Amino acid sequence: MTTVEEAEKIILAQLKDHGVETVPFELALGRVLAENIKADRDLPPFNRVTMDGIAIAHEAIEQGITTFKIKATQAAGEEPIAIDTPDECIEIMTGAALSPSVDAIIRYEDLEIKEGTAKLLITDIKHGQNIHQKGKDKKQGYTVAAANQLITPAIISLAASVGKAELQVKKMPKVMIISSGDELVDVADTPSGFQIRRSNNYTIKAVLTQHGLDADMLHIPDNPEITRQQIQNCLQNYDVILLSGGISMGKFDYIPQALEDLQVKKLFHKVQQRPGKPFWFGRHDNGVLVFAFPGNPVATFMCLHRYFLLWLNTTLGLPAKQPVYAQLAKDFTFMPQLKYFLQVKLNFTQQGILSAQPIEGNGSGDFANLADTDAFIELPLERNEFKQGEVFPVIKF
Amino acid sequence: MTTVEEAEKIILAQLKDHGVETVPFELALGRVLAENIKADRDLPPFNRVTMDGIAIAHEAIEQGITTFKIKATQAAGEEPIAIDTPDECIEIMTGAALSPSVDAIIRYEDLEIKEGTAKLLITDIKHGQNIHQKGKDKKQGYTVAAANQLITPAIISLAASVGKAELQVKKMPKVMIISSGDELVDVADTPSGFQIRRSNNYTIKAVLTQHGLDADMLHIPDNPEITRQQIQNCLQNYDVILLSGGISMGKFDYIPQALEDLQVKKLFHKVQQRPGKPFWFGRHDNGVLVFAFPGNPVATFMCLHRYFLLWLNTTLGLPAKQPVYAQLAKDFTFMPQLKYFLQVKLNFTQQGILSAQPIEGNGSGDFANLADTDAFIELPLERNEFKQGEVFPVIKF
Repeated sequence: MTTVEEAEKIILAQLKDHGVETVPFELALGRVLAENIKADRDLPPFNRVTMDGIAIAHEAIEQGITTFKIKATQAAGEEPIAIDTPDECIEIMTGAALSPSVDAIIRYEDLEIKEGTAKLLITDIKHGQNIHQKGKDKKQGYTVAAANQLITPAIISLAASVGKAELQVKKMPKVMIISSGDELVDVADTPSGFQIRRSNNYTIKAVLTQHGLDADMLHIPDNPEITRQQIQNCLQNYDVILLSGGISMGKFDYIPQALEDLQVKKLFHKVQQRPGKPFWFGRHDNGVLVFAFPGNPVATFMCLHRYFLLWLNTTLGLPAKQPVYAQLAKDFTFMPQLKYFLQVKLNFTQQGILSAQPIEGNGSGDFANLADTDAFIELPLERNEFKQGEVFPVIKF
Repeated sequence: MTTVEEAEKIILAQLKDHGVETVPFELALGRVLAENIKADRDLPPFNRVTMDGIAIAHEAIEQGITTFKIKATQAAGEEPIAIDTPDECIEIMTGAALSPSVDAIIRYEDLEIKEGTAKLLITDIKHGQNIHQKGKDKKQGYTVAAANQLITPAIISLAASVGKAELQVKKMPKVMIISSGDELVDVADTPSGFQIRRSNNYTIKAVLTQHGLDADMLHIPDNPEITRQQIQNCLQNYDVILLSGGISMGKFDYIPQALEDLQVKKLFHKVQQRPGKPFWFGRHDNGVLVFAFPGNPVATFMCLHRYFLLWLNTTLGLPAKQPVYAQLAKDFTFMPQLKYFLQVKLNFTQQGILSAQPIEGNGSGDFANLADTDAFIELPLERNEFKQGEVFPVIKF
């Protein structure tokens, strides 16, 4: 049987460049940056006042001058005003651009202003004080944000600062989520006593939404001809097909036959893991990938996070995520020869340790249990006994 | 001066019920649930087959029967089919609802099927095997998700399962983000040599978007009459006003005067913290709150996370967030009598410890530095020396 590590390797061998598109910068949050953002000017672009008060030439202090004639008042955004002699000053506001004739700011709190003059109340005045020097943060042309990173509010802010009203971002792959089976009715419909409602497709869609991907959804009834047509259509119009359920030995599971007829090549089937052992992964000659997750809702959820999001992250060119490690909060035993993804509730101890409290479901794919947890902890295949205090990687969701 | 703890207490005394609205369940991701979601039926709603194979009456095993006549085939979603005698079976698919006449499932792998009969290849068959019993996960009427929690993909899934096509969610407060000052030009405009571009308003908007809040934005020029009119308009149409900059001693900062004229009462001004010391917070008689953040971009970012998001979380009725603690990765000294919010880069050690590496900015509000970090670590006011390995709370962003 394929191991988790082998499955990951096979999936990560299927990367593709999905291209680049240009979007208004304020809509780029959560996308992947596809260009370097460079400073269009020095940052700050001028010697910038950081306190309201007066601007003087520091040489005046050396000359013993303590009272200054206010030559003019300069607001932020106004053209810089020069002084003519060292006993003059400019009353000046935070954010204003300094004239080269002045090089120290004394704030209002340290002044007495009356009848057009400003008198210093302090003596210790440093050259350049309360001035944010031109280019101190970054020089013109400097890459303030490099390509291939997630666009956060900080990146949005940098783009705004340097006038990038539009940003080049990676295109997202086109994803279709397929549910199947006549036993499933839609959420607003009333199921008979032997039907249930669709939910895995909505779960997948919600998780993808959290990751900035707007996927389509399709339900296929138990009919071989319709199944074939619909899958064919998806293979022509999407980059990825995500299936939940429908790949099994059941007599009315027409999807495996349709995939075979349409030349989707199986790359693996069955992974040495729980949940999610029947996970199937394949690829069409045209490059379309098919992730067929098991119908068990918790298995679908785990495989989506562990495999699909990893693939998405990687194919978009993002660096590998920093692994998250947590300490098991109590002993745990798991006998089957499978890598177990145990549902846990995480919290930080006051020692800064991430602690993982196992919250076991009843194995039936009970989603109500999943709502009470926030991660899977990944327990190694080759062991059966896991002790309190041991550390393992976790997948937060 | 107001301490961080006092500021927090004053802000959290200003909670308000913003009401409830009904949205389609699939659009409720990230909102706050305002009702209990209950199971409309038992979960699962019937004795559900979990493996493809045959359904038999377990009493047949006790009678020594090992070959069964296949009476019929039942797909998932079909009405349950009963057997008439213990030597009969139903060929049955995963997801099907069991007739009361059968109570064990034998999977295909353990059968030999030919000429309309199924022969057992195994002997150890348990009563109820491969059946997910009606009501085992949850009983009808059970609250599968309680009000006052964030709607995650798991909650979306539960809502779908129990047929909640619409969900009651908390209304979000109406928020206006105001920037001001003639020195600021829009992102697409070319600033003069003494102007810069607006960015704090976009940063705030992006952070709020991450938290499901769609805020409006307004830029006010340096004009006292326009300032007064615009602020008055906001006080009539919004629940919260977020200002970045514009509250200072500057001659052209017309906002403080407008707020005073319009009877916005100051609740505090200046907090014993860095960054963000000039933070101002007030309230109008009609309940509108004004968070006036300092113009320094890093200060605005910190105050937004530390104060506004905390207020938002609390006013929406969410439980207090689990604190996150991290270990300082190196010694750090900070002398001023201020609570310092130090920018850090977080990573997990293989011991499951969250480690915080200080990445100091140059104090100028350099946002390029912020893009390289992912949290503020909150260092206590009453100390100046902080040692490697000591643990403090962090605010992740």
